[in-house]
Amino acid sequence: MAPFRHRLRVRFHECDPQGIVFNAHYLAYADIAVTELYREAFGSWDVPMTDHGLDMVVAEATVRYRFPLHFDEEVDLVVSLARLGETSTVTRVDVERDGSTAAEVELRHVFVDARARTKTPMPGALREALARFA
Amino acid sequence: MAPFRHRLRVRFHECDPQGIVFNAHYLAYADIAVTELYREAFGSWDVPMTDHGLDMVVAEATVRYRFPLHFDEEVDLVVSLARLGETSTVTRVDVERDGSTAAEVELRHVFVDARARTKTPMPGALREALARFA
Amino acid sequence: MAPFRHRLRVRFHECDPQGIVFNAHYLAYADIAVTELYREAFGSWDVPMTDHGLDMVVAEATVRYRFPLHFDEEVDLVVSLARLGETSTVTRVDVERDGSTAAEVELRHVFVDARARTKTPMPGALREALARFA
Amino acid sequence: MAPFRHRLRVRFHECDPQGIVFNAHYLAYADIAVTELYREAFGSWDVPMTDHGLDMVVAEATVRYRFPLHFDEEVDLVVSLARLGETSTVTRVDVERDGSTAAEVELRHVFVDARARTKTPMPGALREALARFA
Repeated sequence: MAPFRHRLRVRFHECDPQGIVFNAHYLAYADIAVTELYREAFGSWDVPMTDHGLDMVVAEATVRYRFPLHFDEEVDLVVSLARLGETSTVTRVDVERDGSTAAEVELRHVFVDARARTKTPMPGALREALARFA
Repeated sequence: MAPFRHRLRVRFHECDPQGIVFNAHYLAYADIAVTELYREAFGSWDVPMTDHGLDMVVAEATVRYRFPLHFDEEVDLVVSLARLGETSTVTRVDVERDGSTAAEVELRHVFVDARARTKTPMPGALREALARFA
Repeated sequence: MAPFRHRLRVRFHECDPQGIVFNAHYLAYADIAVTELYREAFGSWDVPMTDHGLDMVVAEATVRYRFPLHFDEEVDLVVSLARLGETSTVTRVDVERDGSTAAEVELRHVFVDARARTKTPMPGALREALARFA
Repeated sequence: MAPFRHRLRVRFHECDPQGIVFNAHYLAYADIAVTELYREAFGSWDVPMTDHGLDMVVAEATVRYRFPLHFDEEVDLVVSLARLGETSTVTRVDVERDGSTAAEVELRHVFVDARARTKTPMPGALREALARFA
């Protein structure tokens, strides 16, 4: 199955005086990628969270920068789940330009109870809907 | 009485590929200036709001850009209240570098009831504490 | 003629602890709108600038906030030129959601010589291509 | 020797609708920490770079999030060099609040020739000045 892709265009204010996308901004791109993956899987970002009284928090993030991106370039966020655990997921986001990987991002999210803010297992329905991206 | 001043240093990621502070970021500076003015007046930003069940929303913002600012420059936010109305304030923030005004920002805030989100008059105690900056 | 429109979706990190788009970010939206207007008019943002040795700087910005925007909402940037002067333009960007105007932004840009950074008249070809948006 | 520390206060617009500092923003904090470390070591960020015709690019970044930070909290960026290689450094930035580590950031920077943009060894003078933070 083809991985999930989301296209966006680099905005001027995302770039720094070196003329390239500021390093922190790749995590904002990855956040967008996760939102769009959930839209693809569930129709919207918040439905699965609200339905199950859940929230997600980022526990760890890694970015490997291969080559820089510039204002107005179009990039593809190629999203897959590198790990689908009991209480956490690892999402892999490759930031591609013209078919080459400019950066690789990995985000580890932990599921928490939306009120108690304590770690909680992923519901089965959630896991099944996400399995196609694993 | 001397106007209230808050000093900050331009951060790298606040600058764009032109090598200058991105135009939108002056509104973030002005937001910091308002927070610091309230800290000066009340000891903290949220005390007067929480005490009175209030919140503030920005209704209008204007920026006049005189000369650009660059990474690592130190600037002074010079803050005063241009208007202290019944339900709103106009805050003036001059962004100064080396005593010259790089930009002038005006922010009109409206006070709202924190729950109902409807416009509400500024309590007398709030007005009195702010009057010294008018 | 129909005004130029560009659609985007509110990103999570553009929103603040009030749960709404942070006030400064409307100027980033307006910046995107100008980029897209130039793409519509010239095929790309930088062609007219590079061809004529020009750059644009923002001289003044105003935002009027009507109602707040939230994460994941789709908005239309409705862009027109309120003024097409000798050395400057005033761009009007209405930020619409579901056909209602959430915010009105006006940006005054001044054309400068890309090297000398001094004010310079807009070339005729540029003015003609932009006239259809005035 | 005491590690280098730089204090800052969380800004409103750095926080997201969860009411906490947005995950990407920790990399902006780490960038500030590196700037301040270079100021401490060399008097300014750009002197060693300009003197040696160098630039630094971020090759890899990792953030481990321990507990969230909120608007207006004061945090200390505790900076040290985890590795001082031939052509690269690994900088460790602990983001502390009240003496507890809220997040750990590691940034690997590669030194490049400012013009050719190719990897280049760190000059001896640079290495020696940085050694006290290793």
